[in-house]
Amino acid sequence: MIDPHYAAPVQEQRTRDLADLLVHVGANVQPGQVVAVSADPSKQILVRHIAESAYRRGAKFVDVSYFDGHVKRVRIEHAPEDTLAYVPPWYGQRFLALGAEGAALVALTPRVTPGLLSDVDPERAGRDLLPALKESSQVINERSINWTVGVYPTSDWAEVVHPHLDPGAALARLWDEIVFVCCLDEPDPRGAWRERSDFLDAVAARLDARTFDALHFEGDGTDLTIGLLPSSRWYSARFSRKDGLPHMVNIPSEEIFTAPDPERVEGTVRATKPLEIAGTLVDGLTVRFEGGRAVAMDARTGIDTLRARASRDEGAARLGEVALVDRDGRVGQAGTVFFDTLLDENAASHIALGSAYAFSVGEEDLARVNTSEIHIDFMIGGDGVDVTGLTREGDRVPVLRGGSWAI
Amino acid sequence: MIDPHYAAPVQEQRTRDLADLLVHVGANVQPGQVVAVSADPSKQILVRHIAESAYRRGAKFVDVSYFDGHVKRVRIEHAPEDTLAYVPPWYGQRFLALGAEGAALVALTPRVTPGLLSDVDPERAGRDLLPALKESSQVINERSINWTVGVYPTSDWAEVVHPHLDPGAALARLWDEIVFVCCLDEPDPRGAWRERSDFLDAVAARLDARTFDALHFEGDGTDLTIGLLPSSRWYSARFSRKDGLPHMVNIPSEEIFTAPDPERVEGTVRATKPLEIAGTLVDGLTVRFEGGRAVAMDARTGIDTLRARASRDEGAARLGEVALVDRDGRVGQAGTVFFDTLLDENAASHIALGSAYAFSVGEEDLARVNTSEIHIDFMIGGDGVDVTGLTREGDRVPVLRGGSWAI
Repeated sequence: MIDPHYAAPVQEQRTRDLADLLVHVGANVQPGQVVAVSADPSKQILVRHIAESAYRRGAKFVDVSYFDGHVKRVRIEHAPEDTLAYVPPWYGQRFLALGAEGAALVALTPRVTPGLLSDVDPERAGRDLLPALKESSQVINERSINWTVGVYPTSDWAEVVHPHLDPGAALARLWDEIVFVCCLDEPDPRGAWRERSDFLDAVAARLDARTFDALHFEGDGTDLTIGLLPSSRWYSARFSRKDGLPHMVNIPSEEIFTAPDPERVEGTVRATKPLEIAGTLVDGLTVRFEGGRAVAMDARTGIDTLRARASRDEGAARLGEVALVDRDGRVGQAGTVFFDTLLDENAASHIALGSAYAFSVGEEDLARVNTSEIHIDFMIGGDGVDVTGLTREGDRVPVLRGGSWAI
Repeated sequence: MIDPHYAAPVQEQRTRDLADLLVHVGANVQPGQVVAVSADPSKQILVRHIAESAYRRGAKFVDVSYFDGHVKRVRIEHAPEDTLAYVPPWYGQRFLALGAEGAALVALTPRVTPGLLSDVDPERAGRDLLPALKESSQVINERSINWTVGVYPTSDWAEVVHPHLDPGAALARLWDEIVFVCCLDEPDPRGAWRERSDFLDAVAARLDARTFDALHFEGDGTDLTIGLLPSSRWYSARFSRKDGLPHMVNIPSEEIFTAPDPERVEGTVRATKPLEIAGTLVDGLTVRFEGGRAVAMDARTGIDTLRARASRDEGAARLGEVALVDRDGRVGQAGTVFFDTLLDENAASHIALGSAYAFSVGEEDLARVNTSEIHIDFMIGGDGVDVTGLTREGDRVPVLRGGSWAI
């Protein structure tokens, strides 16, 4: 039961705390910065608090860009067939200008309410990549902006996550979960994230020290070997801009990741959670890789949308990311499927089709990492999936066993 | 009383009709066009219907730009003092790109909910002109886009217009009024607008034929003479793009307007309705002009915001527009103060401080029309205010008497 007289000020305070976390710890907004905010219009309340938090911190301007998933749906339903891949050039120009300006960016997920596009023509849906922009990959790889991605619970999303609850209770439950996974229930959320990032960076350092030739994922229907590049380095979400300004790119984040060798991926993988592609749910996904390329993919729902994305360009059927997540992270502990990649990818180890974060390899391997207009994460880890490091000498080193670090 | 089971489909149909009117008659969207839509996020439902209507008509892309008045409020309250006039360069660049593209534009008012900014520091509010852009005046004067401005009733606005009604009834009343003033209760709204525009264009032609040297407004506390330029021509809202594509720039519209001589305005004028400046209400306004310049202005509320705007640049204290409205228009008949310029200016004759529509004079007078970053309309007409044309020969010709055309 929710007592509305009690709930309103509590949600108000939680929203303020979430805004402050994203502005101070996530993007780490600096005085004088332009702060871009990307969100669905249903997230207006948090956006206003983010704006207030950023202006209080001395921001020069908060540039809110609302992307309306319902308008996207209307486009997929009614726009002329040959226009669906069109993106106005000023969308990308704005993003490049944000990069040149050295702006901050706070993006909120879900970008489009999960399920909103589940009944549209998947072939048409696969052509419209918005709100994703290829210029955003470029700016992020140049490390010229201090960015973060966060979450905000809304009613329409809560009904997808908790369909068995009445709407008010579903939203309250989702709020509780978001507060938990973002450590907002801690007396010092910033300190909690510092501690968790320190731990993950230490694991990343141990992995870097081994310079594995490949990782082997095995169990629960998966038998997949992912080659790594000689200079692949592991990173947590604690990034820094090229000038050294620290920021945390996802809140919450429980992963460490790197760019794999897009030519050396072999075997079959079964997704351990459903994934959302801009409103379309892909459930029960299996993918078979040969020579680095996804040569077969299947699913119970949404496979046509994924196939359309994966045929977008040459790199769209190859891997750009491999990420490891242990069972101690709060997202995994929550035990909920959120139908939102930011959260679900942090519950489990995952891989991504499409573009790599180029900064995760040394200059000597820059030309070898995958490039694409897409980047689609899907979850392949779990307590039943062992992860083993393969050395160049042929040794097998346990990395994750039963979901816990073994390295 | 509103029966919600009855009201929902009715409002849905009205929203569809309004969207179609703005897309087909207002902007007159053509196949293959980019269609920019500017709106407050509270107008999402109409925006989605506009997108659908535009895509059904063959639009290439609908580029929705939501401007959030609550974020503007947060900025005025909390942003560093010296940043309040800053506008990211990509805002204007986007607008220039829309012009170069020959795009369509549908803008929805109120841009900011009336009264939302009534209690912020007026001096600070006066520095932040957004969502207005100087590039939009440029593109509009170049006549490169087919644009329209329309209205959409929302709950927060309805409560300002009808504070004595309960929220549901206030919104229902405002909906009824919008349907009436937009002729959506007619069996053929498009035909109704064609007929009204034909009538207004005929009045404009009679005024053009007289080439008055000046207009004299007299009555209800006003005694104001406004000089006209030799080539000032009168226009209704039925415009055409420079390539001849017709569009209707305001729906509803009951006015005919021209650009006056910014050097020859003399006397005192009393506003006959309150005006809204991006959320600030200016009520009880009086202005005294000498040599074309507003040398004194006073009001019961909001005068500091207006004074800040009127000191923005050299042209901000001079007139860019004079418009005549008779009492037969539906907005005047509705008898409601909407606290929204688009509607209220169409209830009464009005003048505007700031930029002129340069196309309303001949090339020989182009250098003489007023230019400014601002354009602020305020209502000075009514049944008690006579309008008289002054010829170069010294004759006085009745133009409006008792609110009706005398010419």
